[in-house]
Amino acid sequence: MDLERHIRDVPDFPKKGIIFKDITPLVGNPDALREAADRLAEPFRTANVQYVAAIEARGFIFGALVAERLGAGFVPIRKPGKLPAKTISHSYALEYGENTLEIHTDAIPRGARVLVIDDVLAIGGTLGASTHLLEQLGADIVAVAVVVELAFLSGRDKLEKYNVHSLIQVAAE
Amino acid sequence: MDLERHIRDVPDFPKKGIIFKDITPLVGNPDALREAADRLAEPFRTANVQYVAAIEARGFIFGALVAERLGAGFVPIRKPGKLPAKTISHSYALEYGENTLEIHTDAIPRGARVLVIDDVLAIGGTLGASTHLLEQLGADIVAVAVVVELAFLSGRDKLEKYNVHSLIQVAAE
Repeated sequence: MDLERHIRDVPDFPKKGIIFKDITPLVGNPDALREAADRLAEPFRTANVQYVAAIEARGFIFGALVAERLGAGFVPIRKPGKLPAKTISHSYALEYGENTLEIHTDAIPRGARVLVIDDVLAIGGTLGASTHLLEQLGADIVAVAVVVELAFLSGRDKLEKYNVHSLIQVAAE
Repeated sequence: MDLERHIRDVPDFPKKGIIFKDITPLVGNPDALREAADRLAEPFRTANVQYVAAIEARGFIFGALVAERLGAGFVPIRKPGKLPAKTISHSYALEYGENTLEIHTDAIPRGARVLVIDDVLAIGGTLGASTHLLEQLGADIVAVAVVVELAFLSGRDKLEKYNVHSLIQVAAE
């Protein structure tokens, strides 16, 4: 299946000049959603992944499906003030603006093998902050996996320590 | 499995006097997460559900797993400014504060059979707004299903038109 066919370009979102890759048609189609989750999980079937950490909010959709496929627990990485128990946080630059992410301090045991999931890899700020938080908790990061990689933004360079797996690579804006 | 054992009470979150039902231990446990998703989907196996609509952000975790179990598409209901294409929105009172939710106008075809999923039913504002948005799009709402129902807040009363399915009922604060 050509998953890219289920990604919609929305011009000028969230601001003028940005072409947003909208995954709602993909998740709205049961076959495309299943195939995306299958292909995200596939390289890690025998990697002994104990936790899938996914980033709010779209990452939760794919993260839950991948966690189930790998028999792993699901760990949410969230925006500030959303997680109720004790957290650590990390701030980073976005493609447009700044952001902070948080994780529960008791989300994983030290040394846990973790796969990190999000929908899109852009400049790598969100995923970089997420891997930073997980490493602070002592995670052994197996890989980072995304549905769409905006390769022209070179976000992979910020994640050079990690194995980065993407299903769709967008070469140019 | 006693799913309630995997729900953690966090006192004074998001504000003093509220006891927050934290589902992160449940989603962090692969067996508990699988069982919760199985039990959310179970009553609707033969209900010809075409779409599962889930509410940002924790609802996305359970919504994705239920959509897959039912062979349904996944529809996100989100906070303002998050969905990139044309939306309709609805504002409502929260247990603490006010909120607005949005849905893409092209999220479902008119007459589609939709199951609505969230993690917690409190006073019913969020789920009431979600069913309102879906009805504006012409949805045939099969049911509303949640992991935790805070029965002492009587949120079910706001959803009296609908079949409400909950896995855990909390009788008193």
